[in-house]
Amino acid sequence: MSDIVTAAMIVIGDEILSGRTKDRNIGHLADIMTAIGVDVKEVRVVPDEEDEIVAAINALRVRYDYVFTTGGIGPTHDDITADSVAKAFGVPCEYDAKAVTLLGESYAKRGIEFNEARKRMARMPVGAEHIDNPVSIAPGFRIGNVHVMAGVPSIFQAMLDNVVPTLRTGTKLLSATVPCPHGEGIIGGPLAEIQTAHPDTIIGSYPKYLDGGFHTELVIRARTKEALDAARQAVEAMVASLPAK
Amino acid sequence: MSDIVTAAMIVIGDEILSGRTKDRNIGHLADIMTAIGVDVKEVRVVPDEEDEIVAAINALRVRYDYVFTTGGIGPTHDDITADSVAKAFGVPCEYDAKAVTLLGESYAKRGIEFNEARKRMARMPVGAEHIDNPVSIAPGFRIGNVHVMAGVPSIFQAMLDNVVPTLRTGTKLLSATVPCPHGEGIIGGPLAEIQTAHPDTIIGSYPKYLDGGFHTELVIRARTKEALDAARQAVEAMVASLPAK
Repeated sequence: MSDIVTAAMIVIGDEILSGRTKDRNIGHLADIMTAIGVDVKEVRVVPDEEDEIVAAINALRVRYDYVFTTGGIGPTHDDITADSVAKAFGVPCEYDAKAVTLLGESYAKRGIEFNEARKRMARMPVGAEHIDNPVSIAPGFRIGNVHVMAGVPSIFQAMLDNVVPTLRTGTKLLSATVPCPHGEGIIGGPLAEIQTAHPDTIIGSYPKYLDGGFHTELVIRARTKEALDAARQAVEAMVASLPAK
Repeated sequence: MSDIVTAAMIVIGDEILSGRTKDRNIGHLADIMTAIGVDVKEVRVVPDEEDEIVAAINALRVRYDYVFTTGGIGPTHDDITADSVAKAFGVPCEYDAKAVTLLGESYAKRGIEFNEARKRMARMPVGAEHIDNPVSIAPGFRIGNVHVMAGVPSIFQAMLDNVVPTLRTGTKLLSATVPCPHGEGIIGGPLAEIQTAHPDTIIGSYPKYLDGGFHTELVIRARTKEALDAARQAVEAMVASLPAK
């Protein structure tokens, strides 16, 4: 089994594509996956349209070890993620007995009617397992390698915390950052040479434009400390060799 | 010609997928496109890998009226967007004479060497047209319906300002927001009925979890004021009919 574990994310929701809501889940998932050694290789943002959701799920679940979705699992008519995931897997979407009980008890305790809209949140593809939701009870679910979670950031984050311990993780990509007071135009040539000389690393260059000039952060990533350190030393020596700005 | 104009976005960069950089361009593009009447239908975030960039461009440019990319057009070895776009279109990627002149003059004026790394930024697919970059000179470019722009937000935003006047725009999707002090569980049923009764609108429900309880923003979208107003009145009447919280 390879020690590289890959993942993709599908953000579901017209509100992200219209700009009405600014996504905060992509960056959070990326941070967590990087921390545990899972490589996020692709993200797609798709509208609240069944065909689009089904197509994205089926394209990504065969390509990557894990797929994570956010959004579209609430109680309203535009929450179609559960149905879409069921369709992608070719299984029925039905009321899940455990989820019905869980939600029913929670609403009863709070004296709130367990109406049809709220019951929608207990529907999931047959064969799915719950992802617990400590914030607002209504569970997410996992079927196959697809993890279906809420779009509200605080709930997504809580659900993801419950998912993380269940994931197979790979060798963490170690990283080191070398700050550079120069723009990419100066370092582009020598940095490319360092990348060529250190093929077991990924060297990225991230420009920032501030106060009328560029500076750069040079990020080295590698799966072993030896490879990381060798490339880092080369990058640091290169930066030190440049004329002061 | 339809009055619906569609677009997709491709965010290019390992740094977004690793969480190192939090994307700020998706929300900005979405805001601007919504304001001018272009519907963003899909966003993909892809790594700095040629095959992935080429596949995303070719999948999306045939499906949507416009494609916008951000990232990967700087002077370093990991900036491979221009080559990837050229490959997607099946044309060579070459030094663009106008861009070489533009960059050469700019560096000469500032007394900075126009080295090989900086010259990389003058490469573009043969047949591409410039997208002016008032911030740091190095141009983006358009080829076919694909607009290639910088990833640094201030530069992306300036380039996009230059692209907007060149776009065909559709009928703006009008929108109205009705705040609702209740969670989706209460309104899910009646809201679905309103959506069914107003098929020429898109009604979205956006829950927020704050201070231990849900409230909701109900957003109605339509292409005519009449359709918008009719659905909004129905939603407002529904919210007013609910017991006070």
